[in-house]
Amino acid sequence: MARSALVVIGNEILSGKIVDTNTPFLIAELRSLGVQLCEIAVVPDEVARIAEAVARVASRSDHVFTSGGVGPTHDDVTMEGVAAAFAVPVIRHPRLEALLRGHYEAQKLPLEEANLRMADVPEGATLLEGPDLRWPVVAMRNVYVLPGIPEIFRRKFLAIRERFRDTPFVLRRIYVRCEEGPIAKDLSVVAARFPQVAIGSYPRMQPDEDGHRVLLTLEGKEESAVAAAVDDLVQRIANHVSRTT
Amino acid sequence: MARSALVVIGNEILSGKIVDTNTPFLIAELRSLGVQLCEIAVVPDEVARIAEAVARVASRSDHVFTSGGVGPTHDDVTMEGVAAAFAVPVIRHPRLEALLRGHYEAQKLPLEEANLRMADVPEGATLLEGPDLRWPVVAMRNVYVLPGIPEIFRRKFLAIRERFRDTPFVLRRIYVRCEEGPIAKDLSVVAARFPQVAIGSYPRMQPDEDGHRVLLTLEGKEESAVAAAVDDLVQRIANHVSRTT
Repeated sequence: MARSALVVIGNEILSGKIVDTNTPFLIAELRSLGVQLCEIAVVPDEVARIAEAVARVASRSDHVFTSGGVGPTHDDVTMEGVAAAFAVPVIRHPRLEALLRGHYEAQKLPLEEANLRMADVPEGATLLEGPDLRWPVVAMRNVYVLPGIPEIFRRKFLAIRERFRDTPFVLRRIYVRCEEGPIAKDLSVVAARFPQVAIGSYPRMQPDEDGHRVLLTLEGKEESAVAAAVDDLVQRIANHVSRTT
Repeated sequence: MARSALVVIGNEILSGKIVDTNTPFLIAELRSLGVQLCEIAVVPDEVARIAEAVARVASRSDHVFTSGGVGPTHDDVTMEGVAAAFAVPVIRHPRLEALLRGHYEAQKLPLEEANLRMADVPEGATLLEGPDLRWPVVAMRNVYVLPGIPEIFRRKFLAIRERFRDTPFVLRRIYVRCEEGPIAKDLSVVAARFPQVAIGSYPRMQPDEDGHRVLLTLEGKEESAVAAAVDDLVQRIANHVSRTT
């Protein structure tokens, strides 16, 4: 099962100036692709912190996505951070530089030295190009560097999403009328019997209109294992179960 | 300046089953208290991952808050994770056990062994009690363990928030009509001249109705330094500035 991680870069998120919408978007996308998201780190615009987070998650993930910190100004340091994570220098990429120069020329806009920072990438990075992409996505090994502006983050992710598709998740739900205490022991037993099934238990403050106090979720990649875990658990806590989906 | 971190625990967040509303709440609260939030980690319901994240951020933060993973079921392992972060065992806290037993007796509810897990805390933890709290907040050194259910997360944080109050942040904004390229060099100069002022540059995809393409934010704890940085920057990029607040 593919494991992934997200590193969000941005003082603006940590200080509450901008609400992070890229994270919920990516969570939903990865889920629908069958890719497990194992961790998220939100770090400030500091090379050392970006490098630390990227290095930590890149070594134990199949795919890492970064959001933010890409641009021409002093607070855009994600490329430096990713380069530091892999202990390589930042270099100016000839293809990106050519694309930038062509764009500014075509638009008859003055090209500032700062704009060329957008062509700087970690040494060894590759460019992913696609028909829906005006600018390529920069990938450094298993790290995909995406910009923070939500429209561009989405457009770029959607252009490369199919390369991450994996076996879909199978999700079953059991609605329970009692609180967590009386079912906790049985949950532990079933969780131990089916290690390939992730079992979640989510209590509500107040029962819902149908009298449910706890929602149990059973999830995995093998439909038969998930079904067997549901059957086993329902049998054990039958008198508390209200509904199964 | 007080530095803080947040560790969110929960497979349900990473898998998109539940939208995390505790993070935006805490971001806004900490900001209004004058406390800098330096990093956020979202980790699964796994002792090792919780321990790793808590240990990493606790050593470099004044305050750490955790959200989620507190309860009677197999997937509630935050106390074990925090204990492991500090290399101490989990113990049953006599005061919490007495509170729990009293509650179940008063409510005439059966007390399951699993319910008593709510009295388990890292050895050395302290209890923060308050008039607005039915259950105390568990604090392990500088780590405040809060539950994931949003209503309880909020109630508990609000009951302890005043102990974290710090000098307020001063925030000024400059609205700019050009793109980032032409002002990038001046931003770098002013950012270097005023290291105690955090300068952010946030471009828009399209100019807003007033023609602004970039929002600059200047923020710090010293009003005079922030004002001086604003004056310096406005002077350098005067022909691009549309408005200052």
